Amino acid sequence: MLDHFGDFERTHYCGELRKENVGERVSLAGWVDSTRDHGGVVFIDLRDRTGKIQIVVSPEISQELTERAKKIRDEFVLAVKGEVRKRPEGTENPKISTGEVEVYVDELKILNRSEPLPFPVDDDVKAGEDVRLRYRFLDLRRKKMQENIIFRHRLYQVVRKTFDEEGFIEIETPFLTKSTPEGARDFLVPSRMHQGKFYALPQSPQLFKQILMVSGFDKYFQIVKCFRDEDLRADRQPEFTQIDFEMSFVKEKDVMSFAERLIKRIYRELLDIDVEIPLPVMTYDEAMERFGTDRPDTRFGLELKNITDIAAECNFKVFRMVAEGGGIVKGINFKGGASLSRKEIDELTKFVGIYGAKGLAWIKVNPDGLQSPIVKFFSEGEINKILERFEAETGDILFFVADKKDVVNHALSNLRLKLGKMAGLIDENKVNLLWITDFPMFEWNEDENRWEALHHPFTSPKEEDIEKLETDPGSVKARAYDMVLNGVEIGGGSIRIHRSDIQEKIFKVIGLSEEEARDRFGFLIEALKYGAPPHGGMAFGLDRICSILCKEDSIREVIAFPKTQRGQCLLTGAPDTVREEQLQELGITVEAEEEKE
Amino acid sequence: MLDHFGDFERTHYCGELRKENVGERVSLAGWVDSTRDHGGVVFIDLRDRTGKIQIVVSPEISQELTERAKKIRDEFVLAVKGEVRKRPEGTENPKISTGEVEVYVDELKILNRSEPLPFPVDDDVKAGEDVRLRYRFLDLRRKKMQENIIFRHRLYQVVRKTFDEEGFIEIETPFLTKSTPEGARDFLVPSRMHQGKFYALPQSPQLFKQILMVSGFDKYFQIVKCFRDEDLRADRQPEFTQIDFEMSFVKEKDVMSFAERLIKRIYRELLDIDVEIPLPVMTYDEAMERFGTDRPDTRFGLELKNITDIAAECNFKVFRMVAEGGGIVKGINFKGGASLSRKEIDELTKFVGIYGAKGLAWIKVNPDGLQSPIVKFFSEGEINKILERFEAETGDILFFVADKKDVVNHALSNLRLKLGKMAGLIDENKVNLLWITDFPMFEWNEDENRWEALHHPFTSPKEEDIEKLETDPGSVKARAYDMVLNGVEIGGGSIRIHRSDIQEKIFKVIGLSEEEARDRFGFLIEALKYGAPPHGGMAFGLDRICSILCKEDSIREVIAFPKTQRGQCLLTGAPDTVREEQLQELGITVEAEEEKE
Repeated sequence: MLDHFGDFERTHYCGELRKENVGERVSLAGWVDSTRDHGGVVFIDLRDRTGKIQIVVSPEISQELTERAKKIRDEFVLAVKGEVRKRPEGTENPKISTGEVEVYVDELKILNRSEPLPFPVDDDVKAGEDVRLRYRFLDLRRKKMQENIIFRHRLYQVVRKTFDEEGFIEIETPFLTKSTPEGARDFLVPSRMHQGKFYALPQSPQLFKQILMVSGFDKYFQIVKCFRDEDLRADRQPEFTQIDFEMSFVKEKDVMSFAERLIKRIYRELLDIDVEIPLPVMTYDEAMERFGTDRPDTRFGLELKNITDIAAECNFKVFRMVAEGGGIVKGINFKGGASLSRKEIDELTKFVGIYGAKGLAWIKVNPDGLQSPIVKFFSEGEINKILERFEAETGDILFFVADKKDVVNHALSNLRLKLGKMAGLIDENKVNLLWITDFPMFEWNEDENRWEALHHPFTSPKEEDIEKLETDPGSVKARAYDMVLNGVEIGGGSIRIHRSDIQEKIFKVIGLSEEEARDRFGFLIEALKYGAPPHGGMAFGLDRICSILCKEDSIREVIAFPKTQRGQCLLTGAPDTVREEQLQELGITVEAEEEKE
Repeated sequence: MLDHFGDFERTHYCGELRKENVGERVSLAGWVDSTRDHGGVVFIDLRDRTGKIQIVVSPEISQELTERAKKIRDEFVLAVKGEVRKRPEGTENPKISTGEVEVYVDELKILNRSEPLPFPVDDDVKAGEDVRLRYRFLDLRRKKMQENIIFRHRLYQVVRKTFDEEGFIEIETPFLTKSTPEGARDFLVPSRMHQGKFYALPQSPQLFKQILMVSGFDKYFQIVKCFRDEDLRADRQPEFTQIDFEMSFVKEKDVMSFAERLIKRIYRELLDIDVEIPLPVMTYDEAMERFGTDRPDTRFGLELKNITDIAAECNFKVFRMVAEGGGIVKGINFKGGASLSRKEIDELTKFVGIYGAKGLAWIKVNPDGLQSPIVKFFSEGEINKILERFEAETGDILFFVADKKDVVNHALSNLRLKLGKMAGLIDENKVNLLWITDFPMFEWNEDENRWEALHHPFTSPKEEDIEKLETDPGSVKARAYDMVLNGVEIGGGSIRIHRSDIQEKIFKVIGLSEEEARDRFGFLIEALKYGAPPHGGMAFGLDRICSILCKEDSIREVIAFPKTQRGQCLLTGAPDTVREEQLQELGITVEAEEEKE
């Protein structure tokens, strides 16, 4: 039989007791982390969210209690009362905060039992992620998970405190809203009162925060769940958390400098790290040229060099044809990589293949000269130009990709990261933050044969490019900015369009008819006609920031109840079938049904 | 043409300027609240979220600027620069914070225009709610709405600060979860990756917060959106906000005293009102007996008196039959109400009819004796007992309802409120908070012919009643508590069940088979088997609390983007039809379609 909690009153948390408490009578409650019988005396490590304390149940104090204690197993829930004593010399445990003391108990309640565990509640978890998610209530007892979740709590508080102190107003925006698909798919919610109609869960509060600026709230923020029904890539979740804000009567620098203060304060208060601000700024074009990506990891070198000009004039047909056909040729000097074996080079060739590159040319700079399958196609002058451009030295290996611009950049930016990791060039303790600015306003969607907004269609084009909206949309730059941390985009935003005439022009460029635009975004177009102020804002990915700050590879490690890659909650079994009556009430029928798993 | 915002830098908010700023050069931005031409000089009240300031555009400073200013209309967006001057003697406006000064501008940008307004942005709005919601971006510019939303912001911050300081951990629980219908209907979200399956939006994070206690987080909180697909009653929203918390190793008094500290602090910090704690506690039975409701408004008297005992022995057939048939007879002494006319009494009779009462008997205590259609059926002794029980005095009128217990209480509790309002007995400045405790665990569902949980099936029954679970469920009391503020339930909670054997018993009482219980709540039953601590918690309705604190009758006045009674967002037009492809991807079809409105 279990004991009643009754009138038990906890006096301390387990991890709080110190030498100073010796002699005090304390009441503790928690979980049995481990238990051992040592010469008839039972030692229990009792654990709560603050840490562990050694509990001693000795026949000297009570024979009966000791017998009961012997039946206690891991993860039982106990409430105990007893006296704090100094541990005997030599038995201290410096690994835990309470290691100098122990509690001799004279009262012990077994409040609950535990069945044998599917995996031990250890820091060093060996269970697969599926088992961990299935038994999330046990997995969350692990020290690292407790630390992550508590860190996340602290992150929320610092973020909101900063916003509050800087005059931002926290305003909740709706979750049941209108479907305005653009980019990702919406999650839909059938309406019962309006059969045949649907709400959509918001992909972001974008339009609402703009409406709030039109309403004159001046500065808005919210930490808010957003939803995207995407085929889940590596480390995405169908529901994720954004730090969302918007400001009126501002320019890029106002939004960016607030964002910098926020990030600086997060690092200072949570990790005691000093981030120097203002952050470096790099244009999109420069980032693409030097790193092949708009989210460069600047913690290490291995920058990309462009040799399209040399390629265009050389005799190596592969290079020349690419250069002449509008493609580019870029490369990386992998310093000291000349010792790579043929097999290793073959693997790297396969690797860039994943990103669409049809080959990976290379030149080794050996002490006895160049070694390369392609060097014979170049004149000595050309080779020297290449070596010079890459600042090649003995011991280096140069890699080249020639292809369409996107393919080259995509392949080489990934190759750069791989080589950086291989060579141990990435200092995990570095915090490299920077801004990427001057993004193109539009990108060409080949499938749909139309321009689409690179960020979103509410982003303001640069003032000086407005006249090119109709004639040359591809050259129009956006007033957008992304913040990049160690090669990960952690946030992005823009100055928005506040004039209805310009907003209508943008809709036209992306191929929305007036009617379509009105149907989807009518309320925004309308709002812009009644006195919309200049405004701009940003959103940070909270899950991602939290995972980086906790040094976790996956955002699932900083989310209490995450979903799997296939969008399932293994704890609750969601999504699941529902009762027929529920569907009838909504007036919908299921066409195809997935096989019962 | 509109002016560019360019390099404009705001130096002050409009409402900030005071005498001390006289002589300073300032830059302001905001909306035109009103404009008037006074002898060729243009006066503009410029408004932002902090207040209004008078802007002067005078031909003395610039003829050209003045001509432009004459074309400015209400709600245009301006940016201005100029000098703060003291207003000429006699022209001060004590009604606004900046009333002693004005700004003479020498630079004026028209950043945006406004079309003629559907309704003026005035405090005293005359537009109907539909128009206000349709043009919410304008409605939110109104001073009272700005104050409400900013008050709500402050409410969030005080609440979170209190939780944080008391050691609660903020943890986000999922929005895409499993449908476990119990009570209200779930909103469903069709899964694309698992066709035929659905997520549900949470009605509350109840099960997740209990799981978090099993995980050892000890104290959890969250301000969180919840969802109920109900036919919307008077002042409900399909999505609403809860202040949700849970604590481990606690008893009722621990949860209640934290809740009291929270409410005390909210009143202190936001309204500078001192709430005395601990709050009074009243049992459910006492509340029902004295007020006919479990959320009594204790700001005034007019308590209900029970005369079932007298009725059972009297000669008035209507009363006696009710009393003998298991019903009750209760009444109210409406002090000083003997002057009510026959017509007024008829109206009150109709009023109690709404709540199911078949009649309203009455006795007037006139100076010249009793006046009543029923008094002739009673003996003098009976009448005296009745008058005594009601402490009736000359000038009073007694009202009686005889019926089934529920009907009597429902009718009289509403009559009591109506009489209290009629007689002006309710002091709107009073803050009457109290706890209701000792609720019944179950209530009988006549339609389904089964017991159901009055709160929810995870509520712990009182220790001493556990043995009656099988034999007499109707008499089992729950370890539940509701907080009532001026007659409104603002929060409720309970100590939960932490033992799987008791949880299984409860499921049995409410008629869930083992299989059904496992199917719906399997993960909770499982979690209780691996060391669940004693725990309990509570949830407050944030929208409701905020509306009461802002002295608003409707929660829609404290929600930025509320929905109508029919669940529609008039601003965005949600819910709406979606594209056929979206439904195809989800594998669902719409059966019946609502007529296009």
